[in-house]
Amino acid sequence: MMIDIEQANRTAVERMMAARPILRTVAPARDVIPGMRDNLLLHAGPPITWERASGPMKGAIVGALIFEGLADDWDSAETFITSGQIDLEPCHEHSAVGPMAGVTSSSMQVYVIENVTHGNMAYSNLNEGYGKVLRYGAYAPDVLKKLRWMNNTMAPILARALELNGGLDMRALLAESLHMGDEGHNRNKAGSIIFTARLAPHIVSATDNRFVVATVLKFLGDNALSVLNPVMAACKAMADAGHGVAGSTIMTVMARNGTDLGIRVSGLGDRWFTGPVGQPDGLYFPGFSAEDASGDIGDSTITETAGIGAFAMASAPAIVTFISGTPEMAINTTLEMYEICSAEHSAFTIPALGFRGTPVGVDIRRVIELGIRPQINTGIAHKDPGVGQIGAGLVLPPMNVFEDALVAFAEHYIA
Amino acid sequence: MMIDIEQANRTAVERMMAARPILRTVAPARDVIPGMRDNLLLHAGPPITWERASGPMKGAIVGALIFEGLADDWDSAETFITSGQIDLEPCHEHSAVGPMAGVTSSSMQVYVIENVTHGNMAYSNLNEGYGKVLRYGAYAPDVLKKLRWMNNTMAPILARALELNGGLDMRALLAESLHMGDEGHNRNKAGSIIFTARLAPHIVSATDNRFVVATVLKFLGDNALSVLNPVMAACKAMADAGHGVAGSTIMTVMARNGTDLGIRVSGLGDRWFTGPVGQPDGLYFPGFSAEDASGDIGDSTITETAGIGAFAMASAPAIVTFISGTPEMAINTTLEMYEICSAEHSAFTIPALGFRGTPVGVDIRRVIELGIRPQINTGIAHKDPGVGQIGAGLVLPPMNVFEDALVAFAEHYIA
Repeated sequence: MMIDIEQANRTAVERMMAARPILRTVAPARDVIPGMRDNLLLHAGPPITWERASGPMKGAIVGALIFEGLADDWDSAETFITSGQIDLEPCHEHSAVGPMAGVTSSSMQVYVIENVTHGNMAYSNLNEGYGKVLRYGAYAPDVLKKLRWMNNTMAPILARALELNGGLDMRALLAESLHMGDEGHNRNKAGSIIFTARLAPHIVSATDNRFVVATVLKFLGDNALSVLNPVMAACKAMADAGHGVAGSTIMTVMARNGTDLGIRVSGLGDRWFTGPVGQPDGLYFPGFSAEDASGDIGDSTITETAGIGAFAMASAPAIVTFISGTPEMAINTTLEMYEICSAEHSAFTIPALGFRGTPVGVDIRRVIELGIRPQINTGIAHKDPGVGQIGAGLVLPPMNVFEDALVAFAEHYIA
Repeated sequence: MMIDIEQANRTAVERMMAARPILRTVAPARDVIPGMRDNLLLHAGPPITWERASGPMKGAIVGALIFEGLADDWDSAETFITSGQIDLEPCHEHSAVGPMAGVTSSSMQVYVIENVTHGNMAYSNLNEGYGKVLRYGAYAPDVLKKLRWMNNTMAPILARALELNGGLDMRALLAESLHMGDEGHNRNKAGSIIFTARLAPHIVSATDNRFVVATVLKFLGDNALSVLNPVMAACKAMADAGHGVAGSTIMTVMARNGTDLGIRVSGLGDRWFTGPVGQPDGLYFPGFSAEDASGDIGDSTITETAGIGAFAMASAPAIVTFISGTPEMAINTTLEMYEICSAEHSAFTIPALGFRGTPVGVDIRRVIELGIRPQINTGIAHKDPGVGQIGAGLVLPPMNVFEDALVAFAEHYIA
C-alpha cells in the first residue's frame, strides 16, 4: 500500500486550521452528547478504572454520583461504581473534553460547539472557577450547590444569550485573545473577559431577574478561566476535523487522567497510546510543594494539540508569573514546537514573532526523530480529592506514547 | 540658588509613580471641574484662539455650543465665539484632559479621578466610540443625540456603578492591561473590556431598565476605546502629582490642539512651551491619505507623559497592525524612550522585556542632549470638521519646545 504521509499530514492539518468552531448553546449532556446515558460518567484522559484512578479523579467521580442522586457519600459511591453499575468512558470517546478530572454526568449542562466547516460537534462542561471545585476532586455540599446553581440558573441564561448573539465564533475569539497575552490553556484572562463582555448585553436580555443577571456577570467576569471550557471544546472540534486521515502521523488527541497520558493519531483511528503521566514542574501556591501534587491530569492538552496553549506561549509572556520560567523561555518554547509541527496556523498568529502562525499539528515522526516532546502548560492538582489547585507549571508527555504510536503506524501501513 | 536637579527629578518621578488614581464617579463638568463655568469651553492642547484653531477643533467647538443650546449652527456659533461671549481654555489648566479636540462644556458629564496618595483630582469627558464624533469635529444632529444619550442616560448609570464598585483602581487596571497587549493610548482593547466586565454587574444593579442596561453594556463592550478617557484622566492625576517640584526638568504635560503642541515642565510652573504640531506618519483608512490629515491633536499624549502609550509599545506588539511598523519597532521604541526618561515605572511592567518597568518621566535635558524626542502614538483626524478619524500612526513633538523650556529653566534657576 502506497501512502504519502506528507500529503496526508497536510490534509489533516489543513482541516484542523479550516475548522471554524461556533459556540452554539448550552444543553444537558444527555440531550446532546452522543452515547451519553444515565449510568455513564465521562472523564478526562484515556480509559481508566476506579481502582487505578488518581485522588482528584476519584473525588470528582464521587461528586458526580452525588450530584446525580446516585450516591450519598464516598462509600456508597465506591460501592455503586465497583459493583459495575456505572460505566467510565473518556470524554474524548464522546466528542467531549473536560479540564482536570473532566468528569461529566448526564444531567450536567455542557457547551455545544459546531464546526461549521466540516459539521462535527464538540462539547465541554461549564467552568466552576477557583477554590474547591469538582474538577479538582472536591465534592463537599457547597461544591455541589455551586454546580447546581451553574446547571439550573446560569446555563439556561447562557444558552439564551448565545442564541441571541447568533452563536460565538471561538476561533475569532481565540485569535483576538492570543493578541492580548493569552495562550489559551493556562492564561485565558483576555478570552474570559471578551466572552463575558460580548455576552453581557444578551445575558441582560435573557432574564428579568436582575439579581441573577448581576450574579452571572460577576461569576463569569471574575473567573479568568470562564472561557477555558468552550476554548477546549473549540480545540476539540478543530482537532477532530483533522482526525481520521489515512496515512497521517499527526497527533489529534493528547489527554491525561491523572494516572495515564494517552494520545491518538489521525491515521490510526480510535486507538489510544498510553504511558504514565509526568509530574508538573512549576510554581506552587503558598503552603504546597511538589510532594502534594497529583500526576498530570485533564483534557486541556487539547489546546496544545490544536496549536495553542504552551505552543503559543510566545504570545503570553506574562504567564511566567504563574507557571514559572522567563519570557525568553516562553518565546523559546514556541520556537521549539515549530520543530515538531507540520504547519504554522493560518488563524492564530503571534505578534511578538512578527505575526508568525502558531505551531500546529504535532507529527509523531518528528517527536521521535528530534527527541522533542510536545510542551504542556498545566494547572497542578493536589493528589488528594477535594483540596483543589495547588499550582501551575510545565510538564511533558512520556516518550513511549509516540514510540508506540509510530510502531503501530508502521505495522498498520507498511507491514 | 543651589539646586539639585537629579534629586528634584527623582522626587517628581517618584510622586508620579506613587500616585494611585481611583475612578470615583461621573458628574457634570460644572459641578466638579475647578473654574468650570457656563461661558467656558475646555479644549485639548495649549491655549488656542478660534482664528488659529484647526478644522476638527472648530467643529468640536461648534458642536459643544449647539449641545449647550448656545448656538444653532456653525455661523451662529462663530458669531457667538468671535464676539467674546465664550472663553476657550486648555483642559490642562483645569486638571482635565480630553482626547482629540477634547472640547468639554459645562453640562457635559466627566469622569472624576482621585489620586488617593496625594489628594489631587483629574477629569475627562466620556468616550463616544467610533465614526462621526464630536472629538473629531463632527456636530451633526446624530452626533449630538448620542452625546445627549451618553450624558443623560449612560452617565448616571456609570456613576452609580462606580459607587457600587467602591471606585475603580485605574493604576491596577492599566498594569493588568499592559500585560494584555495594550499600551494605553492607541490600544485599549483589554482595558476597555476589563472596564466593561468589572462594572457590568453594578451597571445591572444601577437601573431596572433592562433595555438601557443592555445598550450601555453593548456601547462600552463594543468600543475598544471605552477606557481611554478614564485612563487619560488617571495619567493626568499621576503626572500632576509630579508637577511643581522646584528644580525638576521632568515634563509633566504634553498636549496638542491641532495647531500647536505644548509642554509643561515640573519645575517651571504653569508656563507652556509651544511649537507647531507634526503630521502623524501612519496607516490610513481606505480612501484617505496624508493630504487629508489634520495636524496632531489631543491631550491623549498625557499617556506618554505618564510612562505608557508609545513608551510602553513593547507591551503591545499587535498595535503595529493599526499604526504601522513592526513588532521590533515597537520594542525599539520603548528601549529608546528609556534613554530620555529618568525612571522605570514601579507599577507598569513589560513582560516581553523581562518585566522591566516602563520608561517614565521625560527629562527635557536628555531630550536636548541626545536629540531623542518623546515618541507619540496617535489617532489621525481629518483636517475638515465632521469627517472623523482617518487613520492612526506615530508623530513627534517639535524640538523647539524642549529647547525653549531648557532655556527658561536656565534663566529661572541659574541666571
